[in-house]
Amino acid sequence: MSQPVAGPVHLADPASGCPINLIAELLGDRWSFVVLRDLMFTARSGFRELLAGCDERIASNVLASRLTKLVDAGLLTRRDDPGHRQKVHYRLTEPAIQLVPVLAAMGLWAANWLPADPQLSAPARHLAEGGPEAMNAFMDELRLAHLGLMG
Amino acid sequence: MSQPVAGPVHLADPASGCPINLIAELLGDRWSFVVLRDLMFTARSGFRELLAGCDERIASNVLASRLTKLVDAGLLTRRDDPGHRQKVHYRLTEPAIQLVPVLAAMGLWAANWLPADPQLSAPARHLAEGGPEAMNAFMDELRLAHLGLMG
Repeated sequence: MSQPVAGPVHLADPASGCPINLIAELLGDRWSFVVLRDLMFTARSGFRELLAGCDERIASNVLASRLTKLVDAGLLTRRDDPGHRQKVHYRLTEPAIQLVPVLAAMGLWAANWLPADPQLSAPARHLAEGGPEAMNAFMDELRLAHLGLMG
Repeated sequence: MSQPVAGPVHLADPASGCPINLIAELLGDRWSFVVLRDLMFTARSGFRELLAGCDERIASNVLASRLTKLVDAGLLTRRDDPGHRQKVHYRLTEPAIQLVPVLAAMGLWAANWLPADPQLSAPARHLAEGGPEAMNAFMDELRLAHLGLMG
């Protein structure tokens, strides 16, 4: 994994300095992972696309609150669409892109132990079983798409 | 990682078969990760030990509810202490032991991006940077201590 190159992630008043506690305080709710998953593994980036495309039918107010939380934490950026005055795009930041190994490990475990759909489990299996090379290749794809390196 | 050898984990009525959604539905709350962390990385196994030892000062009713949830899910077993009639011990099951790579990836990310204590981050760094060998060695230690292979 490459070393951090962006600013730290923001978390107010943590109850301890244990890293498991810190990430659990930041992301330990069901919908934060679902929102990060959709930004990481699909091309959706607008609010309406994220709302309509979510297989778990996230509620509009929950999606809005999680997007705001993730932007405030430094895990997402929010940008206006120059072609549509009322449309915004959400993009992953470098720290969020570096969550790929976390989501891959979570997905592999769930594919092994929970009633996961084999087709929906393929990306996590590919990443987890492909090791650092597969992780780095995918993170580089995300950097191209989300950090503006294509534009 | 060794293949699953225990029964599946129980999760009622998931909203989708996506593995990230499934694990987020099961464990996506702050305290589940904290409780699993303490059972995984400390020798504490009794309710009072877990309550008193938790650096984040988990509330008694929250600890009780998370232990019950994790037992019902098949991630923990609950056994009476033969020497103390009122004491019970909680132990990790095989699926919970296989969460080691998930907690290691979470801990490494938090050590890099959040204000984590370096000393508290050492176990996650050791596991994440030691690769499959370090993960397997630690999971084998947990199997000895939690699955009754020592007794």
